[in-house]
Amino acid sequence: MKIGILGTGGVGRTLAAKLFALGHEVVIGTRNVDDTLARTVPDGMGGPPFKVWHSQNPKVKLVKFSEAASFGEILFLATFGDKTSASIEMAGKQNFDNKVVIDTTNPLDFSKGVPPKFNATLGNSLGEQIQKQIPNSKVVKAFNTIGAHIMVNPMREEGSPDLFIAGNDSDAKKLFSSLAAQMGWQSVIDLGDISQSYWLEANAMLWINYGFKYNSWNLAFKLLKK
Amino acid sequence: MKIGILGTGGVGRTLAAKLFALGHEVVIGTRNVDDTLARTVPDGMGGPPFKVWHSQNPKVKLVKFSEAASFGEILFLATFGDKTSASIEMAGKQNFDNKVVIDTTNPLDFSKGVPPKFNATLGNSLGEQIQKQIPNSKVVKAFNTIGAHIMVNPMREEGSPDLFIAGNDSDAKKLFSSLAAQMGWQSVIDLGDISQSYWLEANAMLWINYGFKYNSWNLAFKLLKK
Repeated sequence: MKIGILGTGGVGRTLAAKLFALGHEVVIGTRNVDDTLARTVPDGMGGPPFKVWHSQNPKVKLVKFSEAASFGEILFLATFGDKTSASIEMAGKQNFDNKVVIDTTNPLDFSKGVPPKFNATLGNSLGEQIQKQIPNSKVVKAFNTIGAHIMVNPMREEGSPDLFIAGNDSDAKKLFSSLAAQMGWQSVIDLGDISQSYWLEANAMLWINYGFKYNSWNLAFKLLKK
Repeated sequence: MKIGILGTGGVGRTLAAKLFALGHEVVIGTRNVDDTLARTVPDGMGGPPFKVWHSQNPKVKLVKFSEAASFGEILFLATFGDKTSASIEMAGKQNFDNKVVIDTTNPLDFSKGVPPKFNATLGNSLGEQIQKQIPNSKVVKAFNTIGAHIMVNPMREEGSPDLFIAGNDSDAKKLFSSLAAQMGWQSVIDLGDISQSYWLEANAMLWINYGFKYNSWNLAFKLLKK
């Protein structure tokens, strides 16, 4: 499949490399290609500059947001949460029409340091905001409660985690679930429509607060069912 | 230990029976003893009338809220969330002074049917409201994301779940953790101070919404850490 990823941070890179390795055509979108490739300082989460990663993954093209959104049959939102809306605007809202859009983002405010503050309200989660911003797309909230390395390599020593998703469109959730299965996920839990995004974003705070408290970042949730 | 439980529903009964079986002295508190024993209809969650349960557990005394709160060295709040504050008032706030208070409740509004609506806001979770109402007590939020039968019998076929707790007082959390260990819990995760109660209450909505969507009520969360 043709996949466009918006965001050049750890999540975008990790998803891109995995999806490319699985045989998909993958591009990563950014605000300004030249600026992104010119950076020599670590990225916002302390990872290496994008060009270092890109030199190791040269077949994943770096393009403008709008090109990535236009190219992809499935699109992944992988920016900081407070940049998602602007990224979509730059990408051109019409480029999301009828597409499956996987929203991995969280409504986090890092302006006061870490742990970040939660920046959404019930009934207006980031997933819902995005679905409203691009109403002709099929937003699926997913991957927002785990680190990028676990998104693409889910099996844990302690067991098989669950991948929680939410979205309004059943076919979109099915398509994403099949992609997740390719990535190694054995269990996808569909929580319902996009309003469930609020509980997933809230759940991210459990993971994030635990991570900062215990300096532990190999976390994934499992819902024991029996 | 002397344990007082506020609430005669499934959670209160199940905790009482287990804690009594473990050798503790246990009383259950209610608004009006005669009224509770006179009931012949199912309780609010469809369980049998209290007197049926009580005839099978005659050594757990049913007393007024104030007697239960006065009696217990550890107190469990096990009422409906929207009744918790009034129960505490009836029990006498001074009876909570210096005591460990385990808050198992959730801020749920069942007035529009099921699934219930969430009725708390960030920074004002039910756990925080209770800690403010009885500031001289040591509130520990716990047990609010699992069914009562799992509180007292945590091991699942699919693994050992985690018991998430939050509260301001370290010694109170330690005391509760030792009680939880007696009840079979192998892993207690301390998320931090009582403000973390919000994320636990939000997490309950994942469990509750999943339960209603899939009619599945043997659920428990596990945080895979490696």
